[in-house]
Amino acid sequence: MLPWLSIIDLAGTFVFAASGAAVGIRRDADLFGVLVLSFAAATAGGMARDVFIGATPPVALADWRYLATACSAGVIVFYREQWLQVFERPVRMLDAAGLSLFVVVGTAKALSFGLTPTSAVLLGVLSGIGGGLVRDVLVAEVPVVLRSDLYASAALVGAIIVALAHVFTLPRIPAMAVGALVCFTLRFMAIRYRWRLPRARRNAPNE
Amino acid sequence: MLPWLSIIDLAGTFVFAASGAAVGIRRDADLFGVLVLSFAAATAGGMARDVFIGATPPVALADWRYLATACSAGVIVFYREQWLQVFERPVRMLDAAGLSLFVVVGTAKALSFGLTPTSAVLLGVLSGIGGGLVRDVLVAEVPVVLRSDLYASAALVGAIIVALAHVFTLPRIPAMAVGALVCFTLRFMAIRYRWRLPRARRNAPNE
Amino acid sequence: MLPWLSIIDLAGTFVFAASGAAVGIRRDADLFGVLVLSFAAATAGGMARDVFIGATPPVALADWRYLATACSAGVIVFYREQWLQVFERPVRMLDAAGLSLFVVVGTAKALSFGLTPTSAVLLGVLSGIGGGLVRDVLVAEVPVVLRSDLYASAALVGAIIVALAHVFTLPRIPAMAVGALVCFTLRFMAIRYRWRLPRARRNAPNE
Repeated sequence: MLPWLSIIDLAGTFVFAASGAAVGIRRDADLFGVLVLSFAAATAGGMARDVFIGATPPVALADWRYLATACSAGVIVFYREQWLQVFERPVRMLDAAGLSLFVVVGTAKALSFGLTPTSAVLLGVLSGIGGGLVRDVLVAEVPVVLRSDLYASAALVGAIIVALAHVFTLPRIPAMAVGALVCFTLRFMAIRYRWRLPRARRNAPNE
Repeated sequence: MLPWLSIIDLAGTFVFAASGAAVGIRRDADLFGVLVLSFAAATAGGMARDVFIGATPPVALADWRYLATACSAGVIVFYREQWLQVFERPVRMLDAAGLSLFVVVGTAKALSFGLTPTSAVLLGVLSGIGGGLVRDVLVAEVPVVLRSDLYASAALVGAIIVALAHVFTLPRIPAMAVGALVCFTLRFMAIRYRWRLPRARRNAPNE
Repeated sequence: MLPWLSIIDLAGTFVFAASGAAVGIRRDADLFGVLVLSFAAATAGGMARDVFIGATPPVALADWRYLATACSAGVIVFYREQWLQVFERPVRMLDAAGLSLFVVVGTAKALSFGLTPTSAVLLGVLSGIGGGLVRDVLVAEVPVVLRSDLYASAALVGAIIVALAHVFTLPRIPAMAVGALVCFTLRFMAIRYRWRLPRARRNAPNE
C-alpha cells in the first residue's frame, strides 16, 4: 500500500477502535474487554474481506501497526472517555472519513484480487460496515450501521464509484479519491441535514 | 452447478432473504439495513461453508445472481410486507424447501471438496441454518433455528442421507433428492403436528 | 499433534462444550440447539484461527473426534444438568485448563504457519476466547469473557510467553508448558482472590 494510504488507513483504524472502546465502556467491559472491542470494531470488516478473498492471514493480523493503533485508541478512550464528548463532532467527521477510506480501499483490494465488480462492491461495503456490525453484535445490540442515517448507503455509493471506474478502465487512484469524497459528503450531509432512508414503519412496537 | 439446481438454489435464496427482510422491518431497520439482513440471511450459511472448505471467494459473493435475488426479495418485502401474512403458509413451505436444498447442496459441495463425511454433514447443516443464525444474531435475538420445532434436526437428517450415500458410493443426485425430501417432510410434519425435540426444562425463567 | 497434546485438547473441547450446553439449556434451546451451542463454544475459537491462517478445512471440522467430544458433553449436560452444580469448582478449574491449553496450542499453531509473533499472540488469544464469544453472542448476551475476572488477560499472558520463546528461539514444548501454567495460575488466582482488571465506571446504568 502507498505510504499516505497506510496513514489514512491507520487513522480510520484509530477512529473505529475509539468507537469500539466507547461501546465497551458503556457496557461495563473491563480494560481487556475494551481493547478486544476496539480491535474488533477497527479490524473485523477488513478481516472478513481478507478471508472472503482468500488473502490470509488478514492484513490486520499480519501487520502489528493495526493492533498497536487499535489498542492505543482503546487505552486513551478507557482513561479519557470524557474526550469523546468534547470531540464529538470531530469524531463523527473522522468516523465518516474512516468509513469512506475503508470502503474504497476494500473495494480496490477486492478488484485487485480478481473479483467481479459486483463482488468487489459487496466486499467494499463489508470492509466499511463490518467492524461496526461486529462491535454491536458483541455487546448484544442491534447494529447502529443498519439503522443510522445514510451510513451503509453512503458506503455503497463510494464502492460503486470505484467499481465503475474499474469497469470503464479509468485510473484507480482518482476513482478512489472521488469515491471516498462522495461517500464522506453523503454521510456528512446525512448527519447535518438528518437525511434518512425510508423505513417500513416508524414507531414500531419493537423499536 | 446444474441449471435446475441453480434455479432451486436461487429460490431458496429468495425465501431466506424474505425472512431476513421481515426481521429487519420488525426491528425498524431502514431500507439498506433491510437489504443487508436479506443478503445475510440468504447467504451467510453458504459463505461460511465456502470459507471453511477454502472455496474463496464464496459463490454468493462471486455470482451476482445471489445479490440480485436477495435484494429483490428484500425490496418486495420492504414495500409489500403485508404479503408475508397472506402467504404465510406458502412462505413456511418455501422456507422448508430452501432449507432442504441448502442442506443437501452444502453437504454435496463439501464432499466434492474432499472433506470427510462427518465434516460434510456439519457443513451441510451449517449451510442450511447459518443464514438464520446470522440473521437473528444481527438483531440481537436468540436464533430461532436453535429453538424451532425440528428445524436443525431435519437439516441434520438430510445431510446424513447425502453423506451416507457417499460412503456407500451410491449415486449423488438421487441421494440429494431423497435427503432433501426427507428433510422437507420432517420439517413439514413438525410444523403440522407440532413435533418438538425435548427441552431440558420448560417454562424456564429466562425464556 | 502429539498424542498427549490431543488428549488435553479434547479435554478442553469437552469442558468448553459443557459450558455451551449449560448456556443453551438456560435459554431454553431444544436438544439440537444445545448441541449446536456445545459445538460452537468448543470449536469456534479454533475454527476462526484456522480460517485466518488459511488452514482450511479447520481441524475441528476435519477431525470427527471434536464433534464426538462436543456432542457427548452436550448430551451429558442436557440430561444431567445438575452435575454442573455439583462439579462447579472442578468445572471452573477444567475451564481454566481448557483456556490455557487452547491459548498455547493456538499460538504455537499460528507460529508454525509462519505468522509473526504479534499475529500469533492475537490468534492464540482468539483460539482461547473465541468459543466463549460466539457462545454468548448466539444467545444474545454480552460475552462473559469480555467482563470476567482476568479471563482474556490470562490468555494474553500465556500467548505472549509462547511467542517470546519463539522470538528467542527457545524450545517450544517447555515454553508451551510454562505459558499454559502461567495462564492457568493467573485465572485460578483471579477466581480465588477475585482479581479484576480496572473498569472505566462501575455501576454503569447499562450494566
